Amino acid sequence: MYEWHWHLEWQTPYEFHGHAISKVIAEQRTPYQRALLVEFYRFGKALILDGKIQSSVVDEFIYHEALVHPLLLSLNYPENVLILGGGEGATLREVLKHKSVRKATMVDIDPVVIDFAKKYLQEWHQGAFDNPRTKLVIEDGSKFVRETKETYDAVIIDLTDPIKDSPSQLLYTKEFYEDIKKITKGGIVTQATSPSFSLDVFSVVYNTLKQVFKKVSVSIVYVPAFDGLWGFVYASDNSNPIELSKEEVDKRISERIEGKLRFYDGETHNTMFSIPKYIREFLENEKRISTMSNPIAVPA
Amino acid sequence: MYEWHWHLEWQTPYEFHGHAISKVIAEQRTPYQRALLVEFYRFGKALILDGKIQSSVVDEFIYHEALVHPLLLSLNYPENVLILGGGEGATLREVLKHKSVRKATMVDIDPVVIDFAKKYLQEWHQGAFDNPRTKLVIEDGSKFVRETKETYDAVIIDLTDPIKDSPSQLLYTKEFYEDIKKITKGGIVTQATSPSFSLDVFSVVYNTLKQVFKKVSVSIVYVPAFDGLWGFVYASDNSNPIELSKEEVDKRISERIEGKLRFYDGETHNTMFSIPKYIREFLENEKRISTMSNPIAVPA
Amino acid sequence: MYEWHWHLEWQTPYEFHGHAISKVIAEQRTPYQRALLVEFYRFGKALILDGKIQSSVVDEFIYHEALVHPLLLSLNYPENVLILGGGEGATLREVLKHKSVRKATMVDIDPVVIDFAKKYLQEWHQGAFDNPRTKLVIEDGSKFVRETKETYDAVIIDLTDPIKDSPSQLLYTKEFYEDIKKITKGGIVTQATSPSFSLDVFSVVYNTLKQVFKKVSVSIVYVPAFDGLWGFVYASDNSNPIELSKEEVDKRISERIEGKLRFYDGETHNTMFSIPKYIREFLENEKRISTMSNPIAVPA
Amino acid sequence: MYEWHWHLEWQTPYEFHGHAISKVIAEQRTPYQRALLVEFYRFGKALILDGKIQSSVVDEFIYHEALVHPLLLSLNYPENVLILGGGEGATLREVLKHKSVRKATMVDIDPVVIDFAKKYLQEWHQGAFDNPRTKLVIEDGSKFVRETKETYDAVIIDLTDPIKDSPSQLLYTKEFYEDIKKITKGGIVTQATSPSFSLDVFSVVYNTLKQVFKKVSVSIVYVPAFDGLWGFVYASDNSNPIELSKEEVDKRISERIEGKLRFYDGETHNTMFSIPKYIREFLENEKRISTMSNPIAVPA
Repeated sequence: MYEWHWHLEWQTPYEFHGHAISKVIAEQRTPYQRALLVEFYRFGKALILDGKIQSSVVDEFIYHEALVHPLLLSLNYPENVLILGGGEGATLREVLKHKSVRKATMVDIDPVVIDFAKKYLQEWHQGAFDNPRTKLVIEDGSKFVRETKETYDAVIIDLTDPIKDSPSQLLYTKEFYEDIKKITKGGIVTQATSPSFSLDVFSVVYNTLKQVFKKVSVSIVYVPAFDGLWGFVYASDNSNPIELSKEEVDKRISERIEGKLRFYDGETHNTMFSIPKYIREFLENEKRISTMSNPIAVPA
Repeated sequence: MYEWHWHLEWQTPYEFHGHAISKVIAEQRTPYQRALLVEFYRFGKALILDGKIQSSVVDEFIYHEALVHPLLLSLNYPENVLILGGGEGATLREVLKHKSVRKATMVDIDPVVIDFAKKYLQEWHQGAFDNPRTKLVIEDGSKFVRETKETYDAVIIDLTDPIKDSPSQLLYTKEFYEDIKKITKGGIVTQATSPSFSLDVFSVVYNTLKQVFKKVSVSIVYVPAFDGLWGFVYASDNSNPIELSKEEVDKRISERIEGKLRFYDGETHNTMFSIPKYIREFLENEKRISTMSNPIAVPA
Repeated sequence: MYEWHWHLEWQTPYEFHGHAISKVIAEQRTPYQRALLVEFYRFGKALILDGKIQSSVVDEFIYHEALVHPLLLSLNYPENVLILGGGEGATLREVLKHKSVRKATMVDIDPVVIDFAKKYLQEWHQGAFDNPRTKLVIEDGSKFVRETKETYDAVIIDLTDPIKDSPSQLLYTKEFYEDIKKITKGGIVTQATSPSFSLDVFSVVYNTLKQVFKKVSVSIVYVPAFDGLWGFVYASDNSNPIELSKEEVDKRISERIEGKLRFYDGETHNTMFSIPKYIREFLENEKRISTMSNPIAVPA
Repeated sequence: MYEWHWHLEWQTPYEFHGHAISKVIAEQRTPYQRALLVEFYRFGKALILDGKIQSSVVDEFIYHEALVHPLLLSLNYPENVLILGGGEGATLREVLKHKSVRKATMVDIDPVVIDFAKKYLQEWHQGAFDNPRTKLVIEDGSKFVRETKETYDAVIIDLTDPIKDSPSQLLYTKEFYEDIKKITKGGIVTQATSPSFSLDVFSVVYNTLKQVFKKVSVSIVYVPAFDGLWGFVYASDNSNPIELSKEEVDKRISERIEGKLRFYDGETHNTMFSIPKYIREFLENEKRISTMSNPIAVPA
């Protein structure tokens, strides 16, 4: 018998991937989005927001380790970390593995998704929301950045893709990055969409950050549940993960991280930060930047 | 209006990817397979054999460069090269870029696919079939290997996946690799299926080759048209691409290759041969091997 | 944005229909089947058992009225009615509209589905399970028929399709119909699968019943949620719905039925019992019968 | 192995049907549409225009017989028949079966589709284009109707659905029907889209024709390749197919038609013209009409 209960994830009007659903665990409509928590045959438990798989229990470690650790390990024992977005709590979980971190502030716009995560996504947050170093703020990330009085050693931007006219779209612009820079002492990282499906967005985010910070680099990983490559951009005026050697990465992991990493180590660092020639050439030739008046967007 | 003409590529009974077809160029049933040449919105012209995209005009360079150049550049000016499979002629094209190569023998079982390629896949072979250094043999690869009197500097195995009960399945076994070794002076490479969809096949091929050759390594690339990662295994008793430094790769490319490469260079070499931690651990723990009596197969 | 949450209903390996799901209401695995209650954009609330839409709130009235009323109105004021299957409770609901009915016994194999129906399918049963004339028996229908001491004025067979090796398959055989005949004083009706997707099953059921009863007729209706035509076979030794005129149908409805019908009346009777020429010829030429040793099955 | 080459026919953004393609026979882009001729496992050879199955070799007889014969048999030996649209030539083929017809004029806007039909759709037209009684005119149907000097015994409107902003949309309006009436002595029929997917269009066409003609009726058939019901509206000031008895239909077929009918006869007439209660009520309550300034359209 053929599978009949499906999630069809559309990357463009010409492409979609079908994942068979073995079970629906929970469904919730929030003022911001439609959340569905399912079990996939291939990926196990997975969170879908507005038709996009956010992360799955079997491979979320790839995305979250790649987002968090290269940045934090490139900095000088970061203590005060800000996370924008990151509703599942897994980015928070990875940040808290760093022994140097004294305070992790997570700012998310959608209280319903946070409650949903607390209740259903135990495998993701693993109690991180209750960690005494955690501070949770329900607020629009852009407003928080403009109004906060604090400065941070690291800012981790873990937002949904810049979908046209969505709340996230303006959080991938030069003006927003300038606001971020004002509150950052160390460095920042942002997820930068899929080089497989929106290479131009990835490269515009990279080029936009180059206008604001002195040292900017990218990494690329393959995430099965995202059906392709995923990109990150790291930016700072002082240091940058790309400068770390394989050996230095392994050394810092053993010194500074509590708990096991499954994806990131020295050799993985090499594969992430070495960029295939045709993508490298595309990035180098990028001239566009994303601004409030002309923000980049992923294909609808 | 929604797209209505589709190729649905099934990776497992629980997964498929849909690619919209803008045009059908040619269709052909052969005694061995059903060939369809289409134009995709995303990938342009693409060859589909038995429901599997073999390669597309926009990204075939990734697969074919990754298959051919690391092996040939790791060897000492290879002259006599054997290709098993490789119907489109693009593997042949890449081999012929090596100035040292004096003879490239390509052995393919399916004459109808070869004629189809000659007629329709000009962008792939780019005239390689007519190169005076090319020798084309229509024969079962396993029979050819047992009967040939020649020895080769390099053997490149570019066959369809080991589908259960297909002609290719037994060409991923220890016994076949032993036969290959008898006719090889330098080194060999085989495509080794997708680490995304058949990680166990990839790792069994790796472990099987480790039983036969002294130096064995893997590389992994992301191929958009294959909807995930693709793996290769390189094997030799003397040398191995993984031993090449980034700088040495760039040097050998400029000395030994005629024509431009789009994918492979020193930095790409680093990303291909650095394996993410979780895949590395999987490979290292592999104990199974593929044999004639118990051959590995991809999921049906 | 494209719809992403889908039910794909496979009619054959070459055909499926996709229905977008707006909401999942409940899911339940029973020892017999996997039940999913969803909301479709097109059909509203709908019950899916093992990947087959059983009925939807917007069009279940077509199937259930067509199943029940032609038979009961063709009989002489039936009092004691037996229903085999009919888990949703809608067949029961229609039977209870007949003022002559004093007792409606419903026999279903799956207690979990019955509890599911009582709890979630209020729009279907509309309280029928609690009607004092209702008697609910959880038991295998075939066992019940062999062991009951009662006889019935009408037997209504509302089972899942004869899927190969499913519990239902043997309840479409000559032997089973002979068992049924022993406990029937008036007439019987069975759902007979889709003339669109399994015309041969429909016609074999028809021909099988002709071996057991003197008067046998078919009707065909179009049910949107079934994505095609649906067939019924009515059988009796004494009377048969096909003998009713349009006017007589309207007269009996007004005399004998309490509550409004939305589908069935005299003119609908004419369209149901007049069979298009090409189907009629197919039915007339049917020679096969379904037996315990060689039971008919729908395509897997 | 799962089928991988598919036609997905979208009825609405929430519904589609997938038909597996066994072979592509021909593809053609015209200035008006994209034509694809395929072989389906279920339906055999089938013509697809702009993503909509126009007709398939195994069931086109249902649509074409239902369109043509009730109208022509209700008239008094029609001699001069006009067909608007009908590119495949099958409507023409059915018209020519009437011995009384002396001239059949077919007007179609798309010469490329006509050439395509002549070349590839032999099973449809069966030589009808070469019949000496046939007159083929390549022209916009609405222009032809306004400019012709002839009058016709019957006008058969066999156009694509009223898709928003397509050439056909205005040919389902009151004004167009008034133009048609001026050149019609007997009666007319139009295809009227699917009561399953666009019941409102069907009923608006019915109500619009009631404003222009004295006697108007509808018939409904089930066409497998259209994945649902299909509707027709017949209109005249003098006579109407709905007035024919079953016996009269059979008599006129045997007297006036040359060659065998597979779908239409007296009993089929009864099932076509008897309308299920819920559709009948919908039709009777329709108040809207389609006009040039406010034309009806099928869902995009």
